[in-house]
Amino acid sequence: MKNQRNPDIINKPVALDFLFKPKSVAVIGASNRPLTIGHQILRNLSDSGYKGAVYPVHPVEDTILGLKTYKSILDVPGGVDVAHIVVKNTLVPATLEECGRNFVKAAIINTAGFSEAGAEGIALENKIIKIAAKAKIRVFGPNCQGIINSDPGVRAYCNFTFTKLTRGAISVAAQSGGVGEVIIQRLNSLGSGFRMYASNGNAADISIPEIMNYWADDEETKVIIIHLESLADPEEFMEIASRVGRKKPVLAIKTGRTAEGARAVVSHTGRLMGSGIPIELMLEKCGVVSFNDQDELCQAAIAFAAQPLPKGKRVAIVTNTGGHGVIAVDGCVEAGLLIPPLPDNTREALQNGLFPEAATRNPVDVLATARPEHYSLALGELMKDSGTDSILVNFITPFFVDCESVAREIVKACAGKEKTVAAVIMTDKAQQGNTLQIIKESGIPVYDFPETAAKVLGAMSRMSEYRNRSREVFAPFKDVDKTAVRSVISAALKEKRTILGARECAIILDSYGIPRAPSENCGNLQECLSAAGKIGFPVVLKIDSADVVHKTEAGGVVLNICDEKELAAGFNGMKSLASRPRFLVQKQLPAGIEIIAGAHAVAGVGHVVMFGLGGVYVEVLKDVVFQFAPLSRQAAQRMVASIKCHAILEGFRGKEGADTEKLAEILIRLSQLVTDIPEIAELDLNPIFAYRDPSRTAAADMRIKI
Amino acid sequence: MKNQRNPDIINKPVALDFLFKPKSVAVIGASNRPLTIGHQILRNLSDSGYKGAVYPVHPVEDTILGLKTYKSILDVPGGVDVAHIVVKNTLVPATLEECGRNFVKAAIINTAGFSEAGAEGIALENKIIKIAAKAKIRVFGPNCQGIINSDPGVRAYCNFTFTKLTRGAISVAAQSGGVGEVIIQRLNSLGSGFRMYASNGNAADISIPEIMNYWADDEETKVIIIHLESLADPEEFMEIASRVGRKKPVLAIKTGRTAEGARAVVSHTGRLMGSGIPIELMLEKCGVVSFNDQDELCQAAIAFAAQPLPKGKRVAIVTNTGGHGVIAVDGCVEAGLLIPPLPDNTREALQNGLFPEAATRNPVDVLATARPEHYSLALGELMKDSGTDSILVNFITPFFVDCESVAREIVKACAGKEKTVAAVIMTDKAQQGNTLQIIKESGIPVYDFPETAAKVLGAMSRMSEYRNRSREVFAPFKDVDKTAVRSVISAALKEKRTILGARECAIILDSYGIPRAPSENCGNLQECLSAAGKIGFPVVLKIDSADVVHKTEAGGVVLNICDEKELAAGFNGMKSLASRPRFLVQKQLPAGIEIIAGAHAVAGVGHVVMFGLGGVYVEVLKDVVFQFAPLSRQAAQRMVASIKCHAILEGFRGKEGADTEKLAEILIRLSQLVTDIPEIAELDLNPIFAYRDPSRTAAADMRIKI
Repeated sequence: MKNQRNPDIINKPVALDFLFKPKSVAVIGASNRPLTIGHQILRNLSDSGYKGAVYPVHPVEDTILGLKTYKSILDVPGGVDVAHIVVKNTLVPATLEECGRNFVKAAIINTAGFSEAGAEGIALENKIIKIAAKAKIRVFGPNCQGIINSDPGVRAYCNFTFTKLTRGAISVAAQSGGVGEVIIQRLNSLGSGFRMYASNGNAADISIPEIMNYWADDEETKVIIIHLESLADPEEFMEIASRVGRKKPVLAIKTGRTAEGARAVVSHTGRLMGSGIPIELMLEKCGVVSFNDQDELCQAAIAFAAQPLPKGKRVAIVTNTGGHGVIAVDGCVEAGLLIPPLPDNTREALQNGLFPEAATRNPVDVLATARPEHYSLALGELMKDSGTDSILVNFITPFFVDCESVAREIVKACAGKEKTVAAVIMTDKAQQGNTLQIIKESGIPVYDFPETAAKVLGAMSRMSEYRNRSREVFAPFKDVDKTAVRSVISAALKEKRTILGARECAIILDSYGIPRAPSENCGNLQECLSAAGKIGFPVVLKIDSADVVHKTEAGGVVLNICDEKELAAGFNGMKSLASRPRFLVQKQLPAGIEIIAGAHAVAGVGHVVMFGLGGVYVEVLKDVVFQFAPLSRQAAQRMVASIKCHAILEGFRGKEGADTEKLAEILIRLSQLVTDIPEIAELDLNPIFAYRDPSRTAAADMRIKI
Repeated sequence: MKNQRNPDIINKPVALDFLFKPKSVAVIGASNRPLTIGHQILRNLSDSGYKGAVYPVHPVEDTILGLKTYKSILDVPGGVDVAHIVVKNTLVPATLEECGRNFVKAAIINTAGFSEAGAEGIALENKIIKIAAKAKIRVFGPNCQGIINSDPGVRAYCNFTFTKLTRGAISVAAQSGGVGEVIIQRLNSLGSGFRMYASNGNAADISIPEIMNYWADDEETKVIIIHLESLADPEEFMEIASRVGRKKPVLAIKTGRTAEGARAVVSHTGRLMGSGIPIELMLEKCGVVSFNDQDELCQAAIAFAAQPLPKGKRVAIVTNTGGHGVIAVDGCVEAGLLIPPLPDNTREALQNGLFPEAATRNPVDVLATARPEHYSLALGELMKDSGTDSILVNFITPFFVDCESVAREIVKACAGKEKTVAAVIMTDKAQQGNTLQIIKESGIPVYDFPETAAKVLGAMSRMSEYRNRSREVFAPFKDVDKTAVRSVISAALKEKRTILGARECAIILDSYGIPRAPSENCGNLQECLSAAGKIGFPVVLKIDSADVVHKTEAGGVVLNICDEKELAAGFNGMKSLASRPRFLVQKQLPAGIEIIAGAHAVAGVGHVVMFGLGGVYVEVLKDVVFQFAPLSRQAAQRMVASIKCHAILEGFRGKEGADTEKLAEILIRLSQLVTDIPEIAELDLNPIFAYRDPSRTAAADMRIKI
């Protein structure tokens, strides 16, 4: 369901200041009874020190929590930015109309019982959206928590959660209020606080992408966290998330990853993520790093907010505990990072300056007895090393070391530098509060465990990689004939055909320089024999009829035909499979590596290209990879290189192997084709036979659906 | 290096009471200077309220920390249980001798500069071990932290770490003091405390297995945590860990898992885990669950200490936040658990008792507004459901709910029951301290995130599975001829041959009922021709000579010989490959599924059996599985079922497939063979051709090394 929201929001963002920086907040359904939402919101506004005007609305009460209370929103002095609506669901339409009459800008509808609650609720939600659109009120919710803004000039706690308002640099938008609550609670307990928070429940009007878009321009928001269970509008999400992701780090937690989890999402929200929407691929394409774990997400957000992204994957580790040096290495490697040995000049400097027993390879073990100047030296050298992208410092606090001085040296060497730094301080926090404080205040994120720091650096390096990829350019081939393809497609569309014939497929592939086995389209045996003469035996004979969809199963394919007699036998065997059949005589390609490649359209987000090894590899091992079209050369090469059985392409155990550059080229051409001709719904090349000799690589069968 | 420790410890455990419950502790090298180890140990003994006598030893001082100080250990009143030695490494031998003269029972040698520090250090360590053995002193360390015992009657803090002594039920033995320190610190910060702690550094005498053995009989130790970087004596470890693992949960953190991490271990400890030691397999065999993450380990330990192991993998989830229900499902599934739908009668009871909008499938979403009685009902029903092995309760604390009452209902329904329960309480800990306390005190472990609880339940179910497996029985086949194999092996050993000939291999396989392709051993062409006549063409001709190890590469194998002429040609082509060669004429098996199976001996821990698909599957995909011999039928079946490409065995896409029971039988027979005849160092059946017809499945090539 696409909502009736302002269609301009993507290009001309509607500032959501009236929602996140309201000058006044009305609470319609305010209450003096402590355990009600209408009471709690007022209490939160009051406890948080909200800077604007607060107007409780209640039909009977004169004051609530000591505040003058209005009988109706119509009685409230004009210019209300935000009105919480906490009345019964069936009363919401009338309440909204009244809000419209008093020029309320945004309604946070906390009340539940809308689209999450069956057919009647859906109708009610549609009704309120119409009323709101007419009254020019933006709706937040319904069935939602609300927003919080920790800006000292605002301190708007328009929400009924329990989390204290603590100023920070991370803004959080969560589809599930519970998940959002736990995330901001965790950010608080990690000492980070948060900037703004929004949980918009059913998201009938204001969407998470719209909120992200607003935060993109909020200078104090350094990092955006989003929680997604379903995606109402993938196109809107892709457009906005890509734009926002270029400006500041966006981190996501996507739940319902497993089949069982996805079922639980349906039961929770009534919505499915949308089968076939490759959410992980979408996030990666937008430069959004996704997490499977709320705590990992929060721990990482703190580093993203305070540290530069690393330029690459190479981590140098400094440790004063050998055991944790090993743990840091394991963690980094498992997070996709590299632990390169240090260059000779760095090692020499370390050997000269550290204790003789110190390890200087990487990890650098300065030893438990290391003094502040040893950290200073080691970190200084690593900062200078051009082979290091980020630094992980392990510091267990020995009682015999001046730990605060070590902390100061770590800060002096690392804070505000261009390399990413994560510090692991292993200590009794009560005893070493100052040591921790010195580092935290410097902007270097502090972790309790090297495992955590390694995951965080892994996530940062992943975002860095996504950003690098987004700079890769799709360079279209010039030798393509788009017009030829257009006319094939138009003809088929005119005839309302969705599956293209062999001849049409051949024209399309030829027009985009995608190699295929030579073939001839024939109407009778004579033509088949003559085609075989031209092509040369052995050949393959296939039926070519829209009536026969599964050719092989129906007996419509004969492979390895060696002479005219076999060809005639094959022809006679399949001529009665369809009325007025046509036939394809095709060169029998010699055995090569069987490849599958293809593309399919995903509503709203373009085409996804697929690549893999055929046969058992795709069917048993699912050894296929996906990427959005169009493909840069690097992206195509990465696809070819990233299948699990890549060694087979390289020529496994003296076998022939395949020219991988040619395969990458085919993928690029294929991606160009579906990008130029978006009417193509599905395209499969299965199999392509690949060889060491690129000129022989060719598709042996193809299928195009429009 | 096997140490000079008491060889009886495995069967007749030497109680380590003198070490862990010392009546008196001397500190040789005690000091009045605050930042020294000799000072800190005294301070820790004093701060922790140690119940025994403390004797500082210092050549000059009269008192240290107010305690009467002795000039030498010889001056200390007799009967010292533990003497810390903190003097310079070269002074340790003389100090130990003095300790011997004053009947010290155990020396905790904190001093470094021994086997971790090169050749001189190794010599020094050997020297002190000799002195200690002669003086009947058990050595703990050297280069170590020491021990802690939190028993209220002992409170021995013989250690220089910073972690407070807090009583608990988890004992921790760590090779790396740093890792041990972080683990006990984390247990403390999670509110669990610990029972005993030991970090024995170079482990020259008292080993971690010996300590585990001691803790097995310590009633107050409910869970044992071990940290391993290297394994000095795998045999000792296996024997003890298996015994201890049957008595109480043993959890391990094995670091140096990645190649890079293993290199860092060498640089840290100077030791390698021992290439070829399948540590994960060993731990599993002993019923030890291993972790990759210190925090996960600690979080799990708390549940293992307080909850029964689940009987199976089936988890029921109760949640009052839909989003976290989804997260719990994802987490459980990714931890290897199952989320089965609930039976109709349970769902009916839930539908009748919960809010109408509650979800009753699994997760059970009682809704945020759920009252205490709803938790009581839901948990009560799940406790009764025979299809539920463990329960994960998510409770986010809504301000409008009486959270303490909910906590009390959770406790009433779940505490002390036979099903495993983990609670996730998502809250502001300052606001809901009582709620948390009510649950924690009941023995139900409390987590901040469903992700953590899911991992914990996964680990508990893994241990349960390991224990079930340990009850599986190896049922040896009776139709084997051990004597025949013995005589083949003896003959080869007498001739000092390590690679057995084809004929010997054939006798061995035949004696254990392992099917092989029919073959004849021949000395000349005439014999080959006659053998082929007997076996029937097509045949394979192989050279059989100890001179030709890599037969195929040397041209010593001709496949698919169809007639006598081809056989003669093959014979002539390979007869000069060796002096006095012999030949094998073997039935050419028809194409089937290529399997590899084998076994190899691992020093001290028996034989490991291997199974996988041959060719590209083993070489590119490494699709092989391992297990210790001998194999129960279930274990063999699991091996066959657990390869990634198992679908190929089932008959992929209408292809033939293989009889998997036959393959399991071959693995059992193979495991029986190497168990009966431990002289076999390596045995490879590569390939075995497998078919749907079990009677045709046979090994086509074999290699045995003794």
